[in-house]
Amino acid sequence: MYSLGNRVKFRLFGKSHGVHVGCILENIPPGVHISNDEMKHEMELRKPKDGIGTPRKEDDEAEIVSGVRDGITDGGPIVIFIANKNTDSSDYREITRIPRPGHADLPAMVKWKDHDIRGGGQFSGRLTAPIVAAGSIAKQMLSHLNIRVAAFTRSIGNSEDHDERDIEDAFGSRQYATRACTSGLDRLMRKEITDVSGEGDSIGGKIECIVSGLPIGFGGIWFDSLDAAIARAVFGIPAVKGIEFGKGFGLAGMKGSESNDQYFVDNNNIKAVSNSMGGIVGGMSNGMPLVFRTAFKPTPSISKEQRSVDLSLMKDTVISVKGRHDPCIVPRAVSVVEAVTALVLADVSMSEVAE
Amino acid sequence: MYSLGNRVKFRLFGKSHGVHVGCILENIPPGVHISNDEMKHEMELRKPKDGIGTPRKEDDEAEIVSGVRDGITDGGPIVIFIANKNTDSSDYREITRIPRPGHADLPAMVKWKDHDIRGGGQFSGRLTAPIVAAGSIAKQMLSHLNIRVAAFTRSIGNSEDHDERDIEDAFGSRQYATRACTSGLDRLMRKEITDVSGEGDSIGGKIECIVSGLPIGFGGIWFDSLDAAIARAVFGIPAVKGIEFGKGFGLAGMKGSESNDQYFVDNNNIKAVSNSMGGIVGGMSNGMPLVFRTAFKPTPSISKEQRSVDLSLMKDTVISVKGRHDPCIVPRAVSVVEAVTALVLADVSMSEVAE
Amino acid sequence: MYSLGNRVKFRLFGKSHGVHVGCILENIPPGVHISNDEMKHEMELRKPKDGIGTPRKEDDEAEIVSGVRDGITDGGPIVIFIANKNTDSSDYREITRIPRPGHADLPAMVKWKDHDIRGGGQFSGRLTAPIVAAGSIAKQMLSHLNIRVAAFTRSIGNSEDHDERDIEDAFGSRQYATRACTSGLDRLMRKEITDVSGEGDSIGGKIECIVSGLPIGFGGIWFDSLDAAIARAVFGIPAVKGIEFGKGFGLAGMKGSESNDQYFVDNNNIKAVSNSMGGIVGGMSNGMPLVFRTAFKPTPSISKEQRSVDLSLMKDTVISVKGRHDPCIVPRAVSVVEAVTALVLADVSMSEVAE
Amino acid sequence: MYSLGNRVKFRLFGKSHGVHVGCILENIPPGVHISNDEMKHEMELRKPKDGIGTPRKEDDEAEIVSGVRDGITDGGPIVIFIANKNTDSSDYREITRIPRPGHADLPAMVKWKDHDIRGGGQFSGRLTAPIVAAGSIAKQMLSHLNIRVAAFTRSIGNSEDHDERDIEDAFGSRQYATRACTSGLDRLMRKEITDVSGEGDSIGGKIECIVSGLPIGFGGIWFDSLDAAIARAVFGIPAVKGIEFGKGFGLAGMKGSESNDQYFVDNNNIKAVSNSMGGIVGGMSNGMPLVFRTAFKPTPSISKEQRSVDLSLMKDTVISVKGRHDPCIVPRAVSVVEAVTALVLADVSMSEVAE
Repeated sequence: MYSLGNRVKFRLFGKSHGVHVGCILENIPPGVHISNDEMKHEMELRKPKDGIGTPRKEDDEAEIVSGVRDGITDGGPIVIFIANKNTDSSDYREITRIPRPGHADLPAMVKWKDHDIRGGGQFSGRLTAPIVAAGSIAKQMLSHLNIRVAAFTRSIGNSEDHDERDIEDAFGSRQYATRACTSGLDRLMRKEITDVSGEGDSIGGKIECIVSGLPIGFGGIWFDSLDAAIARAVFGIPAVKGIEFGKGFGLAGMKGSESNDQYFVDNNNIKAVSNSMGGIVGGMSNGMPLVFRTAFKPTPSISKEQRSVDLSLMKDTVISVKGRHDPCIVPRAVSVVEAVTALVLADVSMSEVAE
Repeated sequence: MYSLGNRVKFRLFGKSHGVHVGCILENIPPGVHISNDEMKHEMELRKPKDGIGTPRKEDDEAEIVSGVRDGITDGGPIVIFIANKNTDSSDYREITRIPRPGHADLPAMVKWKDHDIRGGGQFSGRLTAPIVAAGSIAKQMLSHLNIRVAAFTRSIGNSEDHDERDIEDAFGSRQYATRACTSGLDRLMRKEITDVSGEGDSIGGKIECIVSGLPIGFGGIWFDSLDAAIARAVFGIPAVKGIEFGKGFGLAGMKGSESNDQYFVDNNNIKAVSNSMGGIVGGMSNGMPLVFRTAFKPTPSISKEQRSVDLSLMKDTVISVKGRHDPCIVPRAVSVVEAVTALVLADVSMSEVAE
Repeated sequence: MYSLGNRVKFRLFGKSHGVHVGCILENIPPGVHISNDEMKHEMELRKPKDGIGTPRKEDDEAEIVSGVRDGITDGGPIVIFIANKNTDSSDYREITRIPRPGHADLPAMVKWKDHDIRGGGQFSGRLTAPIVAAGSIAKQMLSHLNIRVAAFTRSIGNSEDHDERDIEDAFGSRQYATRACTSGLDRLMRKEITDVSGEGDSIGGKIECIVSGLPIGFGGIWFDSLDAAIARAVFGIPAVKGIEFGKGFGLAGMKGSESNDQYFVDNNNIKAVSNSMGGIVGGMSNGMPLVFRTAFKPTPSISKEQRSVDLSLMKDTVISVKGRHDPCIVPRAVSVVEAVTALVLADVSMSEVAE
Repeated sequence: MYSLGNRVKFRLFGKSHGVHVGCILENIPPGVHISNDEMKHEMELRKPKDGIGTPRKEDDEAEIVSGVRDGITDGGPIVIFIANKNTDSSDYREITRIPRPGHADLPAMVKWKDHDIRGGGQFSGRLTAPIVAAGSIAKQMLSHLNIRVAAFTRSIGNSEDHDERDIEDAFGSRQYATRACTSGLDRLMRKEITDVSGEGDSIGGKIECIVSGLPIGFGGIWFDSLDAAIARAVFGIPAVKGIEFGKGFGLAGMKGSESNDQYFVDNNNIKAVSNSMGGIVGGMSNGMPLVFRTAFKPTPSISKEQRSVDLSLMKDTVISVKGRHDPCIVPRAVSVVEAVTALVLADVSMSEVAE
């Protein structure tokens, strides 16, 4: 349940209103140096930023309680805990009978019973904190293989970055609250967010992720394809509604003579003249950078009045969602996209060694 | 390897130039009536159609050799065989040293050794035949739960179907070779294909899939989300480069007040006024039809000359791919999209019962 | 790694010299009442007893940090932590180059590198503490299905209990330090232990486990057999060298007319006139009590001088193992046998529901 | 279902009265030479022998339909088929309402419905034929690692082989119908079988299995222990009721100073002076031969009258089992014990490579 990976196995536990959230990460090889500062920095990037995120404060101190000794992995399962310090029992969501449109409420209420956590605290975006912590460990493991992962905000609402970006641009986005690649785009996207926020509304956006350093042949075929594994992991993030690799949906309107990335020899290495495929052919890396884009829907929690149903009376009603919600989840989700991608790549990298 | 599902487990075997291709399907419950005619019909839909597909003839007779007795599943693993009748050893691909652009050739050549099938026959689209056969069994199992799956061609090249379609339209596409929803669109799309075919080129397109009858709550959360499972399965089909649910990438530019599907009571049932989410919220069905679209790249095998590399000499060269290839894989892939979707739903439906 | 179960999944983590040991238990259904006192009592039974166990003190406070809310399971993963309070870094085993005979030392030294925990702290019997804690939860879940699990000491050294025992006798053993069924046997077995302890030696023994309440048909066939699952779990306990069900090895010398448990009707229920099969036929319960016996080797750590090899010099040498070891692990292992059995039964019980 | 292994995955399919039985074996590496003659020879050894086995003729021609090309594995799943030539529909077991004592009948009848194969043909010993075929492939793969597997009959009824045996003795048993190690023992054991056969009765026995060539450290710890994996696989064989490694149950009465296998240096290799542990310490090989014994119960099908119950009337009755059953399954089971052991070792050997 809530797990990812065949060899490097990741699984989540906890709930937003329990004592802890956390995760367990198995089969990271022994001897990998793990920097706590690095992990702290990644956790920091996921936190809401002034002006554009929820004013709710989350401490998010990730503690590695097992599997790392003196900063080096010991081959055992890595267990990470994040205390839920700010929890306040009054905060516990009243099980109302009015499902919020766009939320998991309706299916969760219909599917699960009272005692079942799955009806409550486990949908919380708070569980993305251990994902980011584990993703940081995966990235540190991947860096030994010269594989790097970075994402950035491609668009928020109507403000879109139309330039081609490389992995250095993506890393550069870490300096901007919106995770845009330039200060100009950061300003535009910030305005998109503050505008809808003022209206009690929310907004969606797109995140692009780039991976460098994958060797030719990294991945698998059929249902073991690298893109299949990444797509599954990315759709595990709440609010994702689409993913495309390389030119993606644009390829549907193209001819083979336009879309095929033709090869040439460059300094005794094989390169492609273009990257329409986003670095993946036949489920495996062709040595070009892996590039994919993912679509996030607007945060469903909005204070604007919406139609809904009172489930106990089975009658129409209206709802206005209160509370301190992020008007746009995209800037914080950039870290989460990076993390699940790193977890998938770490898993596949271990299969590579084996086969 | 090449497997799908946790409870209803599907796995592929065989290769394009071996004696058989086939698959094994486990944990279909006993007592399900299986119509061979139905399966035959599904296999027929996957075959190349005159004028727009490869002239290569494939017999594709699927034989159920285990797991079904007198037309009723017996609870044991279902094993399906499809003989490779038309195989001709001269047809066996010369292991040239010139990878075809857009193909799995380059990663496969670098990754696998001579004796390894994964470098050769197992990439073949021929392996989609057992997928369609198993998908037919999954559909027949799902029909007992009133769940129906149908897909159609949304676009080929620049010819796009702009109307909203329902599942009956999708079933209606079975009468057209391109799997378009209307004869007008069929004509347009057919022309797209014959045009590129004449140029020695190929073309991409989009397939839309619709599922009706899913109960509210069908699916799971986080990495068990229904959309995550479908995305993984769909990217397991060669040539897929993107997937989106509901309004998909369009949601990135929308506000929450526009994208949220608001609820109302209709005849004592809960309905949504719109279906921007494509029937999935929080990884589970909200009771609306499940709708997703997927992007297929153009067939990479084209006779037009392309740049490539001679791997043995590590020198630039050119290649023109010969042979009888489909200039557009989309019409035949409609069946495959339906099949993997049905396999995923059958799997999830068994978990539903259990939990 | 270190996991058990398909549906109710159990996995261990931690090491003897780390901050914690613990475990994660997934898919226990929501709504099960969990008594902490019960778990505490089970943990108590595993602790070393005065006079016959190691004088080392272990606190063993099991804390459920996730998955149980107000004494009721919430459907999420149950995470249990046991702090390693008494750890003292000087206690950390010097990686000597002289493997202790009978221990995992030799294979571990050859197989794993320095940084690898698997060469060190993860072999510790201390990891049986979270097994017992999780086993207590499994037992509490099983008790709702009227399934009860209890074990006792069948023999220590040459002191053997020759009477037929039922599950009440097994529960009765909880009052004796050796886990014998009677005070007379307890005295005899205690003497076996104190005798070898005085000589700087150790002693083996047998544990018998009884399960009542399994419905006819509980289990599976071929590699899903109930006995196969139990055997695997029991051999996961260090020091186990044999297992037999019912008359076990005695059946090898019997005729079918003697060994078959013949059926009769008793009060509208089917019963067997004997229980040579130990309650399992064809991998499933026949409704009679499940009975198996397991053989434990003597603790390999003895202070008596033994031959060994200095691996750095590749020369013969001698070793005398110091430290506070249990001269007989059997009394404490009774709880562990019960625990792994309960974990297996909980897992199979969930499959029962599903199929 | 009916599967074994994590990396080298084996799964059974088919039923005794269907068209085929067979199996699929995944992740055998590409490039392994497979001799069909070798496999044929192994299949031959499993067949009933004149005078001591069932007179029923079984052809048992194993056909590899996928995964081996020109006698060399190709890295794809290996699919094996064995046609059920001698099937005769009148032979189909009448679903009587009188369960045979000692058989799976009672739990199967209670557990499964009419259409469910699991209530019928899948319990058949006939499914051990594909196990032996797959085991032959596993052995051929292991031979490249210098790992050899051989078993022999340790006892039948009261005729027991009391000598210590090595792997050459075990291979030598292939010349005797009973799989005893000497012609004298073969005569004695043969008499045990013909005696009970004449009385309409059956008899049990013990099989010992020896593995040479395992490197020090082969295996895993806790629930990944090599003995745990073998025990699970062996209990997957119908009629097994016990397993012990090395001195097994005898260790329960020993002291540590007697049971520990002390080490010495022999020609720059580490050896043990004894093999009480049967080659396994801490779940891994210590470099000594792996030795285990397993107890088989008498065949439950006997023509002697036994008490049973008519399930439709819920009244006492008697039963006398007709048909051509083996009076002692042990000689034929020797091949099956070897096969499941080889399948487990092949699986673990692949994990070894990986970690």
